[in-house]
Order: sequence, then structure tokens, then C-alpha cells
Amino acid sequence: MPTDQTHNPALQSWLPSANAHPSFPIQNLPFGIFSPPNATPRPGIAIGDHILDLTLLQASNLLPAAINSLIPLAPTLNDFLAQGPTPRTLLRQAVSHLLAASSPPHPELLHPATACTLHLPAHIPNYTDFYAGIHHALAVGRLFRPDAPLLPNYKWIPIGYHGRASSIRPSGTPVTRPAGQRKLPHEQQPTFGPTRALDFELELGIWIGPPNPLGRPILIAEAHNHIAGFCLLNDWSARDLQSWEYQPLGPFLAKSFHTTISPWIITPEALAPFRQPQPSRDPTDPQPLPYLADPEDQATGALNLILEVFLLTHSMRTQNIAPYPITQSNAHHLYWTPQQLLTHHTSNGCNLLPGDLLGTGTISAPNATGPGSLLELTQAATQPLTLPTGEQRFYLEDGDEILLRATAHRPGFTPIGFGDCRALIHPAQN
Amino acid sequence: MPTDQTHNPALQSWLPSANAHPSFPIQNLPFGIFSPPNATPRPGIAIGDHILDLTLLQASNLLPAAINSLIPLAPTLNDFLAQGPTPRTLLRQAVSHLLAASSPPHPELLHPATACTLHLPAHIPNYTDFYAGIHHALAVGRLFRPDAPLLPNYKWIPIGYHGRASSIRPSGTPVTRPAGQRKLPHEQQPTFGPTRALDFELELGIWIGPPNPLGRPILIAEAHNHIAGFCLLNDWSARDLQSWEYQPLGPFLAKSFHTTISPWIITPEALAPFRQPQPSRDPTDPQPLPYLADPEDQATGALNLILEVFLLTHSMRTQNIAPYPITQSNAHHLYWTPQQLLTHHTSNGCNLLPGDLLGTGTISAPNATGPGSLLELTQAATQPLTLPTGEQRFYLEDGDEILLRATAHRPGFTPIGFGDCRALIHPAQN
Repeated sequence: MPTDQTHNPALQSWLPSANAHPSFPIQNLPFGIFSPPNATPRPGIAIGDHILDLTLLQASNLLPAAINSLIPLAPTLNDFLAQGPTPRTLLRQAVSHLLAASSPPHPELLHPATACTLHLPAHIPNYTDFYAGIHHALAVGRLFRPDAPLLPNYKWIPIGYHGRASSIRPSGTPVTRPAGQRKLPHEQQPTFGPTRALDFELELGIWIGPPNPLGRPILIAEAHNHIAGFCLLNDWSARDLQSWEYQPLGPFLAKSFHTTISPWIITPEALAPFRQPQPSRDPTDPQPLPYLADPEDQATGALNLILEVFLLTHSMRTQNIAPYPITQSNAHHLYWTPQQLLTHHTSNGCNLLPGDLLGTGTISAPNATGPGSLLELTQAATQPLTLPTGEQRFYLEDGDEILLRATAHRPGFTPIGFGDCRALIHPAQN
Repeated sequence: MPTDQTHNPALQSWLPSANAHPSFPIQNLPFGIFSPPNATPRPGIAIGDHILDLTLLQASNLLPAAINSLIPLAPTLNDFLAQGPTPRTLLRQAVSHLLAASSPPHPELLHPATACTLHLPAHIPNYTDFYAGIHHALAVGRLFRPDAPLLPNYKWIPIGYHGRASSIRPSGTPVTRPAGQRKLPHEQQPTFGPTRALDFELELGIWIGPPNPLGRPILIAEAHNHIAGFCLLNDWSARDLQSWEYQPLGPFLAKSFHTTISPWIITPEALAPFRQPQPSRDPTDPQPLPYLADPEDQATGALNLILEVFLLTHSMRTQNIAPYPITQSNAHHLYWTPQQLLTHHTSNGCNLLPGDLLGTGTISAPNATGPGSLLELTQAATQPLTLPTGEQRFYLEDGDEILLRATAHRPGFTPIGFGDCRALIHPAQN
């Protein structure tokens, strides 16, 4: 398991808020795009409750010239992601040294995060969503096909579909309740109107770095070099639209109205200490076909990330009640590793581009405390969720806010988080 | 039906090859991006067997200043498409006048098309593929569900799914046979290897012009203002990959390896004379829900475009045998109009971007002469197609080339075509 000085839990920063920060201690150093007050979007690194302005850092010439030239300055990180692990790793090490308590403080390079606006960290050329959370697939399958919850292909092939790239928004952008065609089983014909079954889905996002040319698959042993980082992803879903539209070509308008992501790119380097073996499979499960099989990936391809979901209703907000935890899961429950998803995606020659985003699919835990969606939590709207206010929910209501949280834990290492992935639901416009 | 002087069949050009040209008479004037020999990509207009160089035209100041300032100069047409019908229409009228036989010739503004390279006319931010060809849906449904070929939602909702934008290529780019997981019904488990069921799909592409903000649907009466033009589209499909992967989330790697389009944007203005009423529905068919219903769209929303498919094998090529016609269909067979597809797409608030591409879905004719795919033509590989050489095909072989052709016809008007949409199949790389 590759670790280096940047992971040392004894490492402290001269910035007090970084030390013991739940998301952004000096051991994390995620990349993003932000605007300081009255200024244009630019790259930054989150540290404690501040953001390191990479444009100011570059101008300061504090780093050695060879490293300084690697600093991204463009208002999207696509070109930086395209360059792969080497410049990212070198810059990370230099910034870790710069921000360490043993170095002279440079507060003039920082902005308070609360004064800044966060943007998508990259232009997203293509977005693909997978279905690799097997406990979600099982739970949803049990609701609709109790006798055969998993389809025959599930354990052979990473199931995925193309998602809508244009409607991905960073944490904090409100979600407008979508309208669409809905038909309940007992209804004679569909009607058009606002969804009555708005749901969240707890997912991890995977940022693509270096591209592959059309027609050239990425081998499983090389896949990690094409992954530039991770984020949280809420795949908002309108279940009534989905059940009416999805046959035979899959989800479309039930998903394309909005997708929320956490805006910081958590690097593979920051997550290196939290890698672990893929969960062991049932003895009756098939072995992965050779193009998806790699001993190194099997040994280290999974991520130990605690994933949580919180719900905050309008009433809770006005009563100052804290967001209510409704789900606790873990990214290691994925049936396929991020590397397997990427390799499968390119196995037909499909070309990935820098800044492409892959969603893992909903990551539910195998027990009742970890449903990755309300569909599972309320058993398809048959068992309500009851909140501390006494309010009940089958699906989400206007004024509700969903917050996702990811935290990497491992004894002997400093925990790191992903930052905010939250969005408030606004009423339908029509 | 809006027609103007640009449609006058008596209009001739001072460029002899434009007169009676099967695709690009002076009545067409499609926009595209091309490179002259040893030069960078730039906008152009196809005329006869030449291309009008818009960069040279702008520098010549031959057009009135107000029109000259509308000429696109960027190496993609996205910004031009975003501006909607007005600048496009004004420039079209001015170029029609410039190229007319009654005006002085300016051959210095033209390049021979055969010396130029054609590119995608715009960066394609998102690609969506629909399923609006009802005779295709019926024919495919009959193969797999003889008792109920159409699913219950088909006549209510335009079925669609997100496609892969990054692998769309202009006519002439070879298609590499993709590999993937394939499992025949009698096989115990899947294997990985080159597809054994490579197919074409005959579709029309729809270019999006002005965008809509996220959360703001485009009303059906406004939809035509957001359509910037049309192209031919071959939605290459690996049927064995598709049948194994597509449940429950739809087609993915079976389609994402390559999509071929004709590179000229045929404008709504050029196609105006060829509009006609939507085909009448069965009395038992549902009326479109109000958000998809518009009297004007019903009266003029369909396009009378003859669509043809030709197959040219390696053996035919070496024997100098002409491409063999295997399909004749028509765009008026679509169950939903392009405007209905666009309005449905945005009905949940999904934002379309300039340069987005919508595929209509495979446009088969209702009879045996018009199958829009080999799946239909060979009845799922049970009845071979026999070619003039005696060769037989169930699906496509390496060295085969598929050519699509579209021609707009109407008595009293000059026919216009879409230009080449062809691609040769190269062997798998792995």
C-alpha cells in the first residue's frame, strides 16, 4: 500500500483550522475550481476552512521552478487531469511541504472558503453511470422480482448507461422538481405533471484523467493511471417517471434533470492509505473474465470510505434540528472496482476524455441501515421514514435537503473527507 | 409552407457543378467545417462539387457589412448554431444571391470538395438517441415479443436514451469492429471477443441551436426555433453485446464504439418546402398529451426525405460493382416529429446545449423494402441477404462499407441531398 510523507498522521499545518479538520486536513489536499469574492474562477486546493489560491501560489514563486510550472491556472482542470499522476503527485508533495507547520506560514495565499464560490472542477464531456452497488441491485430487484432479484448478467458484466452531462451541478445548486409522464399501474393512461416520487441515490463519482484514443481499450493493469480522483454523486431520480419510461432503453428523463456532485477532486494519492482488497465473492460467483481480472486490482482496488446520507426538512431547518442520518454505507460494498468499471467502459474501444465522470451506481450496505435510496428505505413507498419532528417521508418533498458525506478511515492514519454534497429541492416550475 | 426565393427551382448558380447536383444545388447551402489542403479547419458552405470558404468570403467584403458580420469564422459552428434562425437565414439569403447565375462569379472563394477534409461541424456536448421509428420498433418487437411487439408506453412517450458523444465521427472515418461480452442463449457463460453481429441503423440526426436553461422546458410551439439543422446518422450496433448487456439499463457498449454522421448541417430553411403533416394515427392510438400537441407541428412537423442504405463489400469493390441498395425508407415514417422529441427531452427541465445532437432512432419503412437495420432485414440472422456477387450477409463483415443517403423530393422543387454518410469496417484490434 503506497504511502508517503504526505500521509503522515503527525503532519500538522501552520493553518490551525486544517488540524483535525473533518474533511480537509493537510493529508487530503483536493483540487477544485473556485471564485474568490468578485473574482473569476481559478484552481485551488482545500485546506481546513480555507482555499489555497493556485494562481497566487504560482505568482509567488515559492515552489521550485520545475514544480511551479506544473501548477494549473486555467478555469477548468481538464488539462491538468489529462496529464496523469506525475504532475499531480509532485504538486501535492510540494503543497504538503508548503502548508506544513514546519514551513513559514503564507496566509496571503489563502481565501476563507465561506467567502468563495465553488464550481464544477472540470468541464464534463461525458457522464456514465454504472450499477456496481450489488446490495442496491439486490434490494431493488427484490422489490420487483422477488424470485430472481439479480438479472443473469449482473455478476459477469459491469452494467452501466450513459447519463446526461449537461445537468451536473456542484453541491449547493437547488434541484427543481421535474415534471414528466407518470402512470401508476392502476391508471388507464399517463398524465403529465410534477414527479410524485423524487428520490436520491448515494454514489461515488470517478474523474477521468488521461484519455484513450477511439478504438484503443485501457487494460485493467493500466486503469488506475487514468483515474484522476473521486467525488460524491447524488443521482437524483424521479421513480414514477422512471418506471413508465425505462423500457426498453433504460433511464432517461427520470435522471437527466439534475445530478449533484461534491466539487473537490479527492486524489488517488490522498486515498492511497484507504485502499483494500475487493470484497470476497461467493464461491458460486463467476470469476471476472480475463479482461477484468488483475491480481493487484483484486488486492487493492476497493476503497474503505464510510458513506452517509442525511435529510433536512424545511420544518427541521426552522426548528434548528440537525440533519437526520438516514443511511450509513461504505464504498467497499461495490461489486466492481473503479478500475474494472473504467476498463469495461473502454473494452469496446470507446474513448474516454479528460474530465469525463463515471458514477459507480447506488452504494447500499447489505443491511437495513444502509439503503442508498428512499426506494429501498421505504420499500417502494410502503413503509414511511419517520423523522425527529414526527414528519414522515415516502419520497422527497419540496424544501427537503439531502446531504451526502464520505469519510476515509483507517487506524494509524488521519481521516479525510470529501466535503459538501448537498442540495435543496425547489418546487416544480410548471 | 414557408418558401422564398432561395427555393426557386429556376434558380441556377454560376458554378456549373451546382446545377442539377444531387446533393448540393444552390437551393441547399448546408453549413459545415472543412480544411482546405494544408490549412486549418474553418466554416464552409457546400455548393455543387465545391466548398465556399466563409473565411475568404468574410475577408472579401462582398456581402453588405451587416450580413458580413454574421459569418461564422470559428473552427466549430457551436456559437453560430446558438444564435438561432435569424443570422442563419440572413446569411443563407445573401449566399444564395452571391452564388446565383445572375451575380458575377467568384471562383476564388471556392475549394474543390475532393481536395478538402470534412470535420464534425460542431463540438457535440451531448448526444441523445430516440426510438421514434415505429416500424423499426414494431419489427424488432415482433422478433422478440410476437404477441405484444410494442411496449405499452410506446405511443404515449417518445422513448430515448443518452448516447455516447465522444465517439461520433464524420463520414469516412473507418469503424473498428468492437470487442465485448457475448453470450448466446444456449451458452453457459459469456465470452469476450470481437462482435459477431455488427449492424447499422439508419437514422436522422437533429442539431440543437439555442440552449434552454436548466429547469426551463422548451414548449412545443417554440421547439422549431431550437433546431439548427439535420444530418444522416448511422447508429452502429453490436447486437450480441447489446442482447447480453442491455437489461435493465439499456444499450451501452453495444453502441458507444462509434457513430457516423454526415458532416453537413442541412438547414431547416433548405428543408422548408419538404415539410408535411405528421402521418395520421390509428383511430385507436392515443392523442399526444397536451405538452406534445401543437396544430402547427401536426400540420407541418414531418419531413419528406427519401432514405436509402447501400452495402459495398470488399469483393464488390475489387470487382468495381456499385454499392448495392438494401433499404429504402422515408423520414415521414417517424411516429414523433423532431419538435416533439426536443420538447419531450426538455420537459423535465433538462438543458440542451448548442451543438447537442439528437438521433431519431432507426427509421424503417412499414414494408419489406425498408428495414432500417440488418437485424430486421435478415430477421435476426435467420434469412441471409444475398448480394450481386453471390455473397451472403447476416451481419456486417470486415471490409464492408455502409452508405446512407437522404434526398428531399417534392414536385415543383429542386431535390436536395445530405451528402455522404459512409464508413468502412476495419477488423478488431484485439
